[in-house]
Amino acid sequence: MAIKYELIKTCKQSGARLGRLHTPHGIIETPIFMPVGTQATVKAMTPEELKEMEAQIILSNTYHLYLRPGHELVQKAGGLHSFMNWDRPILTDSGGFQVFSLGDLRKITEEGVTFQSHLDGSRHFLSPERVMAIENALGADIIMAFDECAPYPSEHDYVKRSLERTTRWAERCKNAHQNTEKQALFGIVQGGMYEDLRRQSAAELVALDFPGYAIGGLSVGEPKPMMYEVLDYTVPLLPADKPRYLMGVGSPDALIEGALRGIDMFDCVLPTRTARNGTAMTSKGKVVIKHAKYTEDFSPLDPECDCYTCRNYTKAYLRHLYKANEILSSRLMSYHNLHFLINLMKQVRKAITEDRLLDFRASFFEKYYGETPTDL
Amino acid sequence: MAIKYELIKTCKQSGARLGRLHTPHGIIETPIFMPVGTQATVKAMTPEELKEMEAQIILSNTYHLYLRPGHELVQKAGGLHSFMNWDRPILTDSGGFQVFSLGDLRKITEEGVTFQSHLDGSRHFLSPERVMAIENALGADIIMAFDECAPYPSEHDYVKRSLERTTRWAERCKNAHQNTEKQALFGIVQGGMYEDLRRQSAAELVALDFPGYAIGGLSVGEPKPMMYEVLDYTVPLLPADKPRYLMGVGSPDALIEGALRGIDMFDCVLPTRTARNGTAMTSKGKVVIKHAKYTEDFSPLDPECDCYTCRNYTKAYLRHLYKANEILSSRLMSYHNLHFLINLMKQVRKAITEDRLLDFRASFFEKYYGETPTDL
Repeated sequence: MAIKYELIKTCKQSGARLGRLHTPHGIIETPIFMPVGTQATVKAMTPEELKEMEAQIILSNTYHLYLRPGHELVQKAGGLHSFMNWDRPILTDSGGFQVFSLGDLRKITEEGVTFQSHLDGSRHFLSPERVMAIENALGADIIMAFDECAPYPSEHDYVKRSLERTTRWAERCKNAHQNTEKQALFGIVQGGMYEDLRRQSAAELVALDFPGYAIGGLSVGEPKPMMYEVLDYTVPLLPADKPRYLMGVGSPDALIEGALRGIDMFDCVLPTRTARNGTAMTSKGKVVIKHAKYTEDFSPLDPECDCYTCRNYTKAYLRHLYKANEILSSRLMSYHNLHFLINLMKQVRKAITEDRLLDFRASFFEKYYGETPTDL
Repeated sequence: MAIKYELIKTCKQSGARLGRLHTPHGIIETPIFMPVGTQATVKAMTPEELKEMEAQIILSNTYHLYLRPGHELVQKAGGLHSFMNWDRPILTDSGGFQVFSLGDLRKITEEGVTFQSHLDGSRHFLSPERVMAIENALGADIIMAFDECAPYPSEHDYVKRSLERTTRWAERCKNAHQNTEKQALFGIVQGGMYEDLRRQSAAELVALDFPGYAIGGLSVGEPKPMMYEVLDYTVPLLPADKPRYLMGVGSPDALIEGALRGIDMFDCVLPTRTARNGTAMTSKGKVVIKHAKYTEDFSPLDPECDCYTCRNYTKAYLRHLYKANEILSSRLMSYHNLHFLINLMKQVRKAITEDRLLDFRASFFEKYYGETPTDL
């Protein structure tokens, strides 16, 4: 087996899990936030900077790499780790989400999906077998099965047919996967916002015995309480000895709420995308750096932060860089935001260790959002 | 005096100078290339990276900083060094060149220049006194007098009137400069491509006894041999005990030709601008990274280079980053190009030390341009 999940302890206050995920490129302490490196680069960052901020694993996008530069090229380069000069674990998604959110003129059949590239309009066909060949070529430590992520809202009937096809595709992925010793294939539980369908999807996928499970189809526009409710009834359906990954989630509140409910892994473009748009996540909430009130603010972005950006630069300078459209703005803001979420998960792990994740959650929400979290 | 130039030796083969320029923020070994940080940041780079590549001094642009974020703000931040977190020497230009190349609707009078901002069309007035107040507020180690850089080609009569005004402005700058202990004011020799006018300008400025001299009005569209000819007769007019700065020059051939003719300091946006456009300077000449021939080229940008980019990434990856419009492309290419020019000047200094700059020039031209340099 390519990976092994080691459950270290469960928080007595919340049920959250502290664990270690052993992979071919090293051990990941969970719960963990995974920075996203869509096109074989975490935008504006170097691998050394990611290590400096203690990123343990990054995610890269199969859809994007398949279209450009192409998985054959990455394979010739010695795989994604070598191509992008990152020697820690990598997870690749399956492209399913992007085919549906970025591809044009998509047509889904039992066999797979035909779509047009968002880059040049060229026509492509992805099937479970094709996606496995691509992910095997990329060579990530963890690879995701090809799924359909039904939009929100969707009718019960549509979601049911979709998840059943996702199960059949997951089985085809499992059969097509050629590198089980070095790459762990995760199944993706779908089922929209319907409890019966989440139960059906989870049961079908667990029966296929994957080395890990993701929960997909959340954070797609539904209200957050609805997402938490789905987690409440879905997470317990997943085996305790396997890692659990909540896809596409990266807001501080959702990371904490997810960890509380037993999620081990998260990813999101939020920290880097909002950074490039000039918004920082800080211990006291969001800072929109372009605001005039920061013009002569010579204090760091976050006085409680010890990241490179906060140790060396003022809000006034960061505001200037942002307004002057300087690349250093994206660099410094991205560094800070990624550091913030990685550090948040470090605090979450510490709180689990000390059986006080609910207390941590209350004090974090108070400081960041100025409000008390909802009762569990 | 804010600075002191120490002549270490003259190359027996070429007459090039090896020197040390003592400034309030440290010693600069000359001849030197100065990376340009137009808006208080060398585009895409951090100060730490600039130090890693052994940048000894950077240049920043008074015109840009005056318009945004404003010199008063920079002064409140503790000056430009503090604002941008760079503790080594800085040189600020006078804004003269930018007023003429970027400002709209400029009107020159004896008093100064009225122009419209390229950012928002707002009207501004810069005079020698105003520019000194701005440069004093920015606090660079070396500051430039406000000059008019006549376009190429210009009539003898126009250039003569322009350089005479530039002399009067230089004198007004000298009188207005408020911080002579910490900031050295350089005069700028103008005179276009006319030997008599260069002689006149140099004589007038040398009579004003500045701590250093720049040669302006070159690299403005004239053929390179014409620039070298101007240097041939202008440099000897400058005092041997003061540093000599050739403004706006950064191509490898011109750096070597300038050093050969006794120039000590150079600056140019070329390495960073071409880097962002995907062109690298390498020991074997230019590499245009988007070219299809690099698609599967898994060798470094420059096999003879030991910079961060060349130690860690392949041409295939750099090509992918460039085509995918990733910020890391600008970072890695800028790092390499700046390192290349800084390292080139290190080799030039070594060649002067060893009295073989002409030999170095011949072998460099052969490798980089595939041709023999013109006879001196």
